[in-house]
Amino acid sequence: MLKGHQSWIFENKPVIRSTATVVGPFEGRGPLAEDFDIVHGDSTLGQDSWEKAERTLIEEAAKLAIESGGLTKEQVQFYIGGDLMAQLISSSFAARTLSIPFLGVFGACSTSMESLALASMIVNSGSAKFALAGTCSHNSSAEKQFRYPTEYGSQKPPTAQYTVTGAGAALVSSEGEGPVVTSATIGRVIDMGITDPFNMGAAMAPAAVDTIEAHFRDLGVEPGHYDLIVTGDLAKVGYEIASELFRKHNIPMDQTEYSDCGMMIYDYEQQMVQSGASGCACSAVVTYGHLLKRMRKGELKRILVVATGALLSPISYQQGESIPCIAHAVSIEAGGVSS
Amino acid sequence: MLKGHQSWIFENKPVIRSTATVVGPFEGRGPLAEDFDIVHGDSTLGQDSWEKAERTLIEEAAKLAIESGGLTKEQVQFYIGGDLMAQLISSSFAARTLSIPFLGVFGACSTSMESLALASMIVNSGSAKFALAGTCSHNSSAEKQFRYPTEYGSQKPPTAQYTVTGAGAALVSSEGEGPVVTSATIGRVIDMGITDPFNMGAAMAPAAVDTIEAHFRDLGVEPGHYDLIVTGDLAKVGYEIASELFRKHNIPMDQTEYSDCGMMIYDYEQQMVQSGASGCACSAVVTYGHLLKRMRKGELKRILVVATGALLSPISYQQGESIPCIAHAVSIEAGGVSS
Repeated sequence: MLKGHQSWIFENKPVIRSTATVVGPFEGRGPLAEDFDIVHGDSTLGQDSWEKAERTLIEEAAKLAIESGGLTKEQVQFYIGGDLMAQLISSSFAARTLSIPFLGVFGACSTSMESLALASMIVNSGSAKFALAGTCSHNSSAEKQFRYPTEYGSQKPPTAQYTVTGAGAALVSSEGEGPVVTSATIGRVIDMGITDPFNMGAAMAPAAVDTIEAHFRDLGVEPGHYDLIVTGDLAKVGYEIASELFRKHNIPMDQTEYSDCGMMIYDYEQQMVQSGASGCACSAVVTYGHLLKRMRKGELKRILVVATGALLSPISYQQGESIPCIAHAVSIEAGGVSS
Repeated sequence: MLKGHQSWIFENKPVIRSTATVVGPFEGRGPLAEDFDIVHGDSTLGQDSWEKAERTLIEEAAKLAIESGGLTKEQVQFYIGGDLMAQLISSSFAARTLSIPFLGVFGACSTSMESLALASMIVNSGSAKFALAGTCSHNSSAEKQFRYPTEYGSQKPPTAQYTVTGAGAALVSSEGEGPVVTSATIGRVIDMGITDPFNMGAAMAPAAVDTIEAHFRDLGVEPGHYDLIVTGDLAKVGYEIASELFRKHNIPMDQTEYSDCGMMIYDYEQQMVQSGASGCACSAVVTYGHLLKRMRKGELKRILVVATGALLSPISYQQGESIPCIAHAVSIEAGGVSS
């Protein structure tokens, strides 16, 4: 149901019946390693290209989420997914393997919550019993596409972010047990004129703040409504800018815990990741792996995940364009049995 | 509402309140020229890159559709759009200009009906009063990205298709006057092993047939339910393959008129377009321009538009992958006043 101008309230309480997270070896050395379902020891995943490795990540996550939910892929009505690769080849090829009716979506790193928002809306409205939301990224395929192949070993400025190698999938269901998706706010595209693809946190921070403001306005709530609000992935540089913007806009974020997925998955002291993490998979694996695990343990009751995306392409950057950004917010509550 | 396994019935009858179509000069010399709202005389649209020209097409179409619907852009809750460009830059940059909450979607040339299906589902479920669906393509930006820059003047085989320069947008509304969107069927990804990006019609035909079969199965109807079924864009080569597959699968398409958007927009005798037309804009401008005009004149009562997409990327092609394809179907009926 529409609430305010750009938010949905899910009055039928779609359930996250199961999730799956798959990551690469570098993520397996970070502080959240224990929260992921599969940690690969080899970032090629035994494939002969980075692109095929990326596709394998999402294929594994999708299959595992469906199995953990006690379903077969034939029972899942819709797969809503996307990734960073041009023409969403990772997700499209995975959709071929899965053979589930497919809705390709793209919001760069906000794809995690764009797909979860849509899957929840589809289930909430009775347009599906079971819908799968998923996304993936691979450090080497993303660097190759957007900046320089990792094989070059090029240096990066301190504002740069490290694309997560991983995939996260969530099976949303009209009934069952699990955390409940309660609302979503769809973001506008915001562009503050940043043109440096090595400083995406700064570009994305205003989009995160815009969506969070819209969420509070539409739902008539304040930050204290949530135990935790996470953006993802602004990383350190963007997090500081967002925090400053919250103060300027008089948004009382001190009512709650505010963190960023891009600051949680790697160990800044042991792992050289500059400003922090990014990539479609970052907010997906942090949310579906780490945060929902904390919710199941009873540590969190109500969270707001605000995934942020930088909508640049190699061509738009080469043509001197600035970086339009977007953020989509989804609220999740610890749930019991829904029916 | 879910109907069958992969279809939605829109029981609240979302209305296509207004549409807009914008095309380039080559489309303006074709047989449907009179049906388009804006025909540009210069394929650069006065911009300094093909990419910016493409973005201008969708910006114009979106603004015109909103104006024709008697709304301001501030009243439109969601813009659901995508295009062929990597990272959907045409749509993302247009969403920045429009400042409407944005859901990026990608289904290659099926994006026209993916976006209309989602916009209709969102409005039908009460998740929006007004949602805009739109897509665009530009011949020169697409050729440059997927094959060779048009400036090279390279030759093409007879199976090749000519990407339409244009954009189409539809404003879907919970009330008002106009054609009504009655159902949608979301397609699976089908891949028959075709690897030639100059023969996309052959690759896409099986996906079109799969979705059409699913549509009839889910809704319990036969082809005769519709006055017209159009695929888009299989063009001549794909149309013949699809027709053969309908016969093999015993689908009685002779009950209705069956055509293809890729065979309608150009004049085969006067315009050198090989197998016919393609591109995100093709099915969008043929549907929103030509077919809905025929519906308003009373010539068509009930149509099924089955937009087909080839989900390849330049990288997947260079790595020797085959072309996964998809098709999404949307049914539209001549409507009176809905409320």
